Amino acid sequence: MRAEIITIGDEILIGQIVDTNSAWLGRQLSLKGIQVVQITSVSDQQAAIVDALETAQTRADLVLLTGGLGPTKDDITKHTLAGYFGSQLVRNDHVFARLKTWFEQRGRVMSDMNGKQADLPHNAEILNNNLGTAQGMLWRKNGKLILSMPGVPYEMKWIVQNQLLPLLEKEFSLPAILHRTLMVTGLVESMIAERIAAIEEALPAVIKLAYLPRPGIVRLRLSGRGAGRAVLSDFIADFEQRIVAELGHHVYGFDDVSLEEAIGEKLRSHHARLALAESCTGGNIARLITGIAGASDYFNGGIVSYSNQAKMDLLGVSSQTLEKEGAVSEATVLEMVSGARQKLAAEFGIAISGVAGPSGGTAEKPVGLVWIAVQGPAETVVRSYNFGTERALNIERASMQALYLLWKMLATN
Amino acid sequence: MRAEIITIGDEILIGQIVDTNSAWLGRQLSLKGIQVVQITSVSDQQAAIVDALETAQTRADLVLLTGGLGPTKDDITKHTLAGYFGSQLVRNDHVFARLKTWFEQRGRVMSDMNGKQADLPHNAEILNNNLGTAQGMLWRKNGKLILSMPGVPYEMKWIVQNQLLPLLEKEFSLPAILHRTLMVTGLVESMIAERIAAIEEALPAVIKLAYLPRPGIVRLRLSGRGAGRAVLSDFIADFEQRIVAELGHHVYGFDDVSLEEAIGEKLRSHHARLALAESCTGGNIARLITGIAGASDYFNGGIVSYSNQAKMDLLGVSSQTLEKEGAVSEATVLEMVSGARQKLAAEFGIAISGVAGPSGGTAEKPVGLVWIAVQGPAETVVRSYNFGTERALNIERASMQALYLLWKMLATN
Repeated sequence: MRAEIITIGDEILIGQIVDTNSAWLGRQLSLKGIQVVQITSVSDQQAAIVDALETAQTRADLVLLTGGLGPTKDDITKHTLAGYFGSQLVRNDHVFARLKTWFEQRGRVMSDMNGKQADLPHNAEILNNNLGTAQGMLWRKNGKLILSMPGVPYEMKWIVQNQLLPLLEKEFSLPAILHRTLMVTGLVESMIAERIAAIEEALPAVIKLAYLPRPGIVRLRLSGRGAGRAVLSDFIADFEQRIVAELGHHVYGFDDVSLEEAIGEKLRSHHARLALAESCTGGNIARLITGIAGASDYFNGGIVSYSNQAKMDLLGVSSQTLEKEGAVSEATVLEMVSGARQKLAAEFGIAISGVAGPSGGTAEKPVGLVWIAVQGPAETVVRSYNFGTERALNIERASMQALYLLWKMLATN
Repeated sequence: MRAEIITIGDEILIGQIVDTNSAWLGRQLSLKGIQVVQITSVSDQQAAIVDALETAQTRADLVLLTGGLGPTKDDITKHTLAGYFGSQLVRNDHVFARLKTWFEQRGRVMSDMNGKQADLPHNAEILNNNLGTAQGMLWRKNGKLILSMPGVPYEMKWIVQNQLLPLLEKEFSLPAILHRTLMVTGLVESMIAERIAAIEEALPAVIKLAYLPRPGIVRLRLSGRGAGRAVLSDFIADFEQRIVAELGHHVYGFDDVSLEEAIGEKLRSHHARLALAESCTGGNIARLITGIAGASDYFNGGIVSYSNQAKMDLLGVSSQTLEKEGAVSEATVLEMVSGARQKLAAEFGIAISGVAGPSGGTAEKPVGLVWIAVQGPAETVVRSYNFGTERALNIERASMQALYLLWKMLATN
């Protein structure tokens, strides 16, 4: 099955918003074995929409349109498609009642304009949208499926996951495709490739391995296709096991779990708590840790000790150490991590101090130099790195490296 | 002038990367008065590239292609276009020498594969790429311009800014277009629209006003077009002044400066320092403040006091207050902000405590409830908000609201 995606809206063409819907759709369809052959973005103009729709049907069996379904005048997708498919717009009482309830539950009165969202093409199948007022509208023509959805990402995603994908699986014999993603930290792509070269070599033709890097982590995705579900499942389980055996603690989880979430689970299961002392990362690690719901189970707090005075007053770093060794030094991060664990009554601690840049470096301590200390009840790890001169990148890399070192300590003890 | 953008690469269609190049290009072209009529993403296949290029020329005068110019086999854009335009690939000695130097400066030896990046179509104008090995290649055909650029965003942007835009300005009489963006905080779109209704009403036809919302801020962009440069400039200066007069301190800056950067400048000019005490935002405000280079001039540090114990130990919040009023209360954030200013020796302080969600709420203190205190030498502001049940959104909104309150105090005293 081949698909095309058409995103509609002037705001895309003038670059006011980045079209993230297409990438998300591309990923979902690919995971189901449906090949996306083209993505097209056009303006809110009838001729442009019809032209894109016509040519898409010459290449694809499934055409997904997003956008242009709001209640205001500038949104013309519904009327354009109704014209194209010879539809009459008729009030759908079922949808109208649902929209009315939807507004009532939010303590709002439904306006006439919003009520018109229930006027739908008589010859389209309606794919309900439980999260908004614009419904999915599906037409079938010459064996092709054309589905129009709202452009609001979470509404579009809801319709795809709850309506479109089940429908496709029911009506079409999509190939059996299985996926399993191993989340890897502390190794860059080339190092992983070297270590699992023999395992990759042994992969059967029906199993593909993709390296999908993100800052600080690499996702390894095993995809099976071209054999029965049971066969693929066994192969994937087998190769997952082999890769885990080879990479050990570097595999911190599966299927898109974040490193900070995996760390949280470990801390929770150890009944241990974490304290942070951040200088150059400026609170970024605390933000990542507290981004996970329930972080208060294992996180007491953190200290962003940006100035030397704060390092002394809040963490108990000695003035002698700061004078002799400087703020960016092994001795300082060691005192910082001890201070944080003590002040915040935590078993585990992370301390970071570095020259974030773009300026402020010296010959001895260049921009990008970062010292990280990680300390647990039984062990202290302290290391220096150079993460380069770009401030934002430097902060991100230092944060992820610190989380990796903590993960390693938690996972291997 | 009408333009189209074609982005090339399988990784876009399978959703492995989000195509951000198109939005950036759309923005740059729109700002120059060039209308983008379609964006198309196609795979690394000759027929797909040629087909997209042919149809783009039926609608546009300028076609920009990005991607598929790497040295590896799967990148076929150069060969495809050479075929399409009847070009011979010939070694460009000038580019070859530059590439060689480029590698030498990085302490690397140029491989044969990299050297082939200097084999370029004989009938294309070469737009130098100073940041990478793939050059811009420009063809002219029937009065249309077709430019192929690398897909690496910073390389593509460099070519556009340093080569393409100057070329277009020199060769074509692009309309005089002027822009000025006012950065507004503390007011949502509809409130701004109400307050400046009369000013908007008075805008001459040659000046357009766009509302561009981002989390916590709204950008108001004045664009002038359709008159001489001097006339437009005067109009824009006049309306900028009127809007600033009406919105007052809500206009925190111009032309895409961030709120945290504007705050930093104010603190620096006041010779004042900032301290933070964050609970539910978990370090996010500290991260924003320290994301700005030079923040150490005015930021001593912050305390992420996630547990009650940390609020007591590190900020001096009293146990009675926590027991009687709870951690999410007016009394607690007031003690937090005083504690932070004192412990971190700062004139200004922000304290935040809230129920970030998705769980943990009660009838009295529902998920989304956030108390914010901002304190300066002369004034204390304390308020409660409800930012909704979505954790990430809640954290982002609370952070931006706190920055707005601080901005207001700094700007109006």
